[in-house]
This record gives sequence, C-alpha cells and structure tokens, in this order.
Amino acid sequence: MLVVQKYGGTSVKDTERIRNVAQKVIEYKKRGDDLIVVVSAMAGETDRLLNLAGSVTPFPDEREVDVLISTGEQVTSALLAITLKSMGYDAISLLGSQVRIITDSSFGKARINEIERERILSELKKGKIVVVPGFQGVDEEGNITTLGRGGSDTTAVALAAGLKADLCEIYTDVDGVYTTDPNICEKARRLDRISYDEMLEMASLGAKVLQIRSVEFAKKYNVPIYVKSSLVEGKGTLVCKEEEIMSMEKVVISGVTYSKNEAKITVNNVPDRPGMAAKIFTALSDANIVVDIIVQNVSHANTTDITFTVAKADAKKAYKIMEDLAKEIGVKDVTMDDDIAKVSIVGLGMISHAGIASKMFSVLAEEGINIEAITTSEIKISCVIKRKYGELAVQALHKAFGLDQEDVKEET
Amino acid sequence: MLVVQKYGGTSVKDTERIRNVAQKVIEYKKRGDDLIVVVSAMAGETDRLLNLAGSVTPFPDEREVDVLISTGEQVTSALLAITLKSMGYDAISLLGSQVRIITDSSFGKARINEIERERILSELKKGKIVVVPGFQGVDEEGNITTLGRGGSDTTAVALAAGLKADLCEIYTDVDGVYTTDPNICEKARRLDRISYDEMLEMASLGAKVLQIRSVEFAKKYNVPIYVKSSLVEGKGTLVCKEEEIMSMEKVVISGVTYSKNEAKITVNNVPDRPGMAAKIFTALSDANIVVDIIVQNVSHANTTDITFTVAKADAKKAYKIMEDLAKEIGVKDVTMDDDIAKVSIVGLGMISHAGIASKMFSVLAEEGINIEAITTSEIKISCVIKRKYGELAVQALHKAFGLDQEDVKEET
Repeated sequence: MLVVQKYGGTSVKDTERIRNVAQKVIEYKKRGDDLIVVVSAMAGETDRLLNLAGSVTPFPDEREVDVLISTGEQVTSALLAITLKSMGYDAISLLGSQVRIITDSSFGKARINEIERERILSELKKGKIVVVPGFQGVDEEGNITTLGRGGSDTTAVALAAGLKADLCEIYTDVDGVYTTDPNICEKARRLDRISYDEMLEMASLGAKVLQIRSVEFAKKYNVPIYVKSSLVEGKGTLVCKEEEIMSMEKVVISGVTYSKNEAKITVNNVPDRPGMAAKIFTALSDANIVVDIIVQNVSHANTTDITFTVAKADAKKAYKIMEDLAKEIGVKDVTMDDDIAKVSIVGLGMISHAGIASKMFSVLAEEGINIEAITTSEIKISCVIKRKYGELAVQALHKAFGLDQEDVKEET
Repeated sequence: MLVVQKYGGTSVKDTERIRNVAQKVIEYKKRGDDLIVVVSAMAGETDRLLNLAGSVTPFPDEREVDVLISTGEQVTSALLAITLKSMGYDAISLLGSQVRIITDSSFGKARINEIERERILSELKKGKIVVVPGFQGVDEEGNITTLGRGGSDTTAVALAAGLKADLCEIYTDVDGVYTTDPNICEKARRLDRISYDEMLEMASLGAKVLQIRSVEFAKKYNVPIYVKSSLVEGKGTLVCKEEEIMSMEKVVISGVTYSKNEAKITVNNVPDRPGMAAKIFTALSDANIVVDIIVQNVSHANTTDITFTVAKADAKKAYKIMEDLAKEIGVKDVTMDDDIAKVSIVGLGMISHAGIASKMFSVLAEEGINIEAITTSEIKISCVIKRKYGELAVQALHKAFGLDQEDVKEET
C-alpha cells in the first residue's frame, strides 16, 4: 500500500516530537507499506522567519520571502530523515525542487501544476521512506515558491493524487473534524465522515483543520483524506466523496461554524442600475480586499442596499473606499459594523431536506437573536448576528440540529 | 568592473548588520560595478542546526545534514536580497542549485567541479545584484552538498574564478592577515600582501582568516583576494601571486603561527623495512584520522621511530589504533603526549635565505625551549615544543625575525 502522511508544525515542534513521528512512520513501514511523509516547519519557525523579513521592511520581496520561509520545512524534512536513518530505516528527503513539485509563479500563494513521479518512485523502489517538506514547490524557471499558510496539507494531497496513493493521512493536533468548535460548545462531536463540499464550507467558515486548497485538490482528484491526531490514537475523520457519505446514515447537518473576525459594511440607496455592484466589488478587489458574504436586498424606489462582509483587518480600508465611491455615484449612506458574528450551518442533508433554513431562523428567534443578513448556498446557511450572541447561537443550533454528543453514561 | 564580495557570519549576524552589508554593496553598485555577494549563515546558526541533528543521533546521515545546514546560508541570502530591494536596488538570491555550483558528492566536504555562468550572467545583465549563499552546492544528481567549515570563502573565490571577476573581497571580522595572533603577541602587524603559498601555510597552521581550500582555489585560478573587515574601513591584506610580492620589498618571514590543538604520538622501534610507514598511516586514514606532521628519524639498529601529530580530539583513537598495530608488527613502545604546542615560521624569503632554520632553533634555545620534533617545507619550519612555552616562542620568534610593529611614536 502506498501511504502519504502529513505531520503539522506542533507534531514536529522539537526533535522529541520528530522521534514520535518517526516511530509512527516506522509502524506503517513494518507492515510493508511504501511511505511518503510530508512535514511542516517546526511550530513557530515560519513566524520567526517572517519576523526576520519584517524587521527589514514591511513589504519584503515576495520571491525572496519564499526562499526564506521554505527553509523551515527543509529543516524538518532533513531532521526526520536523519531520525529515521538513525533508527535503522532508510530514508531520503526530497525538496520541492528535487521531487519536482511544479507550481505557477505566484510567490506566497503558488498553485501546483504538476508533480513529477519519477524521482519519488525510484526512491520508494529502493525501499526508502521519502520525506518531503510541505508548503514548497518550484516554478518553471526553478524559483522556489510556497503554497500559502497550511500549504503542507495541499502538498500531501497533491502527492497522494499524483502518485495514486492508497491512503492520505493528515496528522494534526486535533483528532478529527468536529460538528463545531469544542471551545464554544462542549457537546461538539467528532465526525466519522464528512464530504469534500461540507469540509470546504467548514474550512472557509473558520474550522482550521485543513487548508481549503487541499480539500479542493482532494475533491478534484478524489483523494480520501483521514484527519487524525499525531498525539493520541483514534479513528479520526474521513473526508471523502458525497456518495460515500450518503450511503451511510443520513445526517442533515454536519456542523455549525462561527466566525467573529469580520466586519459588515452596507452601502444604502445604491441606484438600481446595471454595473453598480461591479463598481463596488471591483474597487474592493483592486485594493486586494477579499469579500466574504454579499447580500443585495430587493430594490425599492429604484435604489437597493448592498451589504458585504470583509476581514476585520480590512474593514477601515474598505469603508474608506466605499465612502469615496459613494460620493462618485451619488450615494449618501455607508455604514459599518464590526461588532458582528457569522454563524453558519453546513450539511449535505439540506439539499434534500426542506425547512432547514426556517428551522435555523426559528432557533435563533427563540433565543431572541436578531438576524442582520442571510446568505445561503446549496449546503450552507450563514447568518450575520450581533457578536455577543455568537456563542449562544452556536450552542442552540448545535443542539437543535441533533449534533450534541450523547452524554457519557456514568451510571449503568 | 565585476566584483565578488563575501561576508562572514558575524557580518550578517542580525538584520541590522545585514543592512550595513547592503549599504556597502550599494556603494559599489553606485560606482557602476556588477556585484555578486556571497553570504555565510548568521553567526551561530550552523551550530544551532548541527545541535538539532546532534540531539537526534551522534552520527546523523551526512546527506541530510547538508540539507539541514545549507538552510543557514539560504536564510541570509534571502534576507540580504530583501534588504537590497527594500533600499531600491534590484537583487536576486540564487542558491547553489540555482546557479548551479556543481560539486562532487562528498557530503559535508564537497569539492566544486564546475560553476555554470549563464544564470548569474543573465541576472547581472538585467542590472541585478546577485546574492549567493556560500558553503553550498549541488552534485550531479541534484543532491544538496556543503563545502565544509569556512566553505563560503571557497564559494566566493570559485565564483570569482569562474566568472573572471576583476576583484574578490572577503569581508570578515578582522581587518586582514597578521604576522601572528595579536592575542598572543601584541606587536603583531597586519600584512599588506601575502602570497598564496604563505597563506596556505598560515591557514593550515592555525590562522583562521581564510578557509584553506579557498586559498588553493585562488592560487590555482590566480584570483587575487582582498581580506578586509566588514566593520572598520581599511586596506586589508591582498593575497596574491608570489611574483607580485617578490617585486616588492623582500621580507624573509611573513608570519609566526601557533597551534595547541594537537597531540604527538610516537611509535618507537619500528622495524626498518619497506611498508611499515604505509601500514601505520593507512590504519589512521582508514579511521578517518587526519595526520598533520610526520617525522621519521634515521634508523638505528634496523629500527626507526615514527612520530606524528593528530588533532587532540582524535588522539585517543589514534593511540588505540597504534597500540593494536604495534602488537601486530611486534613493536613494544607507543607513546602519546598532548601537552604540546606547534610553533611555525612561514615566509617565501626562506627559499633564498640561508640560516633561517638555525636562527629559529637558536631563538628557541636562547629562551630555554627544547625542541621535540622538527619539520620543514620550502616556505615553513615547524617545531613541536612543550605547550607551556607556546606563547613565549611566538613572541620571541616574532621579534627575532623583525615582525614587531614599530612602536607608535607618542612623543615627537
């Protein structure tokens, strides 16, 4: 069996932890598997390197930043190979440029175009465990690139896809994907399975278990991913195709997610004519501001209100841009509110179940929570509410949709 | 003018120092030079990385150690490129594998076979300052290699030779090559010029200004090297061809060097027949022990004594090997002494001057210092003496051969 495993920063934060990782890898090797192990930088290392660059200039050259921060994973990959060899197992590290993992040239957020198979396969054939630093690739000109935060997940999934691995395991510091954040709702439950689409919605909504891009990649190439803890034994969560979920017991809602890092901006009384929305969102994207939710209400008296949310860090900048634009198009009223939370429910089940949205709104209403904006996708409904109600909303929805963990029976 | 500059670890130990380096580089750029800048790892970084590997196993895999420690220079090269760009000068870092600096596959002590010129020349043509991490190369199979301690000097000289640079400057934390160690002899004087051969003898005898290999390389390709301080302005020392020295005022002796990191082993009463020396030194080289001085006395009664020195760290191992070998060849007497110092005088002048050796021996005798072993080369005479006399011997020889700095006239 060909197995790709990925270990995150906390799993390799020191040489003691790296030894634990090596032991886990060797367990698989002993049972006869071929192994490709993808590693992140030791916890804190990427930030240390970024701070070095930041101490030189607030806007360091992007190509050189990738040369700088790719060393973090390179160090871990060498240390793991050294550890495996010292334990009597043949191993070799192969950098992104040695594999070669070919990406485009978008430094800091490169996308993988191709993975060459020959070198890895030849090392596996010699019986070696192949250790690959995550997060890094090389463009057509041979420049080092990195894949963005969490990029090591994508490296692992891409290798699993490119080499047609039988199994892709992502080891992290949590033991799987949960129905919601256990810090907010103590009844949060680990999911045995979740579909790619649900995972995508969960990830983009703030569940930071897997990098979004890695899930897109896994979906595209149909790579089943096991999310597991490197610290405790357990089944973890399988991220896989919808079909494999649907054939199991049907859960309507898989999870409740929550984000409080956004601000809401509303442009009121926008003339209801073609091109107005384009004007607004082009202005924002020109300023590199990523917009999350967009809501446009129905038009009254030839004007409409457009509401959107952006990361809190971008809020002031976005507000300023909207004010300038408002003058230009003759709009008077721009408002901003950063005292908000976004609560969402995610689940494949809602495709085939009616009444999920109304149930969500009722649950919030029962708790006296006013809804300020709503958006929906096929498998997700998000509501913007006052920030102070965020935790309450999560707990109420988690319970109402039957996600609460059954109480452990203490007396039998 | 094409200039290669190399900056050592203390010159780039933090981003503040790197900024100073950038300013110096920019000075040259402003006057119209093309620049290739070779950088070491930030001071302490290589040791930090080696300690990580050492905390895993006392014998880490050599290929992977090179993957590990080459990151030190990679980090500095990216930071310097970032700094130069932030100051408005276009720059690009090119790793050993990007240049490509092709070496053999002797991990940890690789030798440069070839330097490809195309990539560097094309970046220089675009007006960019090219920053190259020192110490690293890549073998024919694309494995990362390193050149051994001080290897960044060799990178710089090899680049200067390969690209036919007009000037090669090695910036370090001392302002040139001295007649002897200023810590031992306060009258030590900076040399304006020194020949490759003298520098080789000085370097191998313990003057740690330049890596030996870089001087060999410079000699082979006739690359004049300026050794300068990155911290203070000054003329530095020019390391160049003999001819360029000889045409200047003739100094008989250029320097006095001193080493106390060796131990002396004597194998007494070795049967005086062919193959005995080969047996001894093959046994040592099989154990990877580097032998420095070898002295074999004339034979008496069909036996001879062979004395050699090795690094103190290897002394016990070498002694054990000699004991085993002694039994095998029927020799009774092996002795070891690590309480020694080696004092040497180096100078082109001694080729044409008679009486240098006898003068050296007289100077030592006058100080009551007994000589335990002597070796000579064309431009060097070394004496092994009791360790406690080391400093005294250096000072006496320095004075006797006219190397003392003239006293600064305080009253005129």
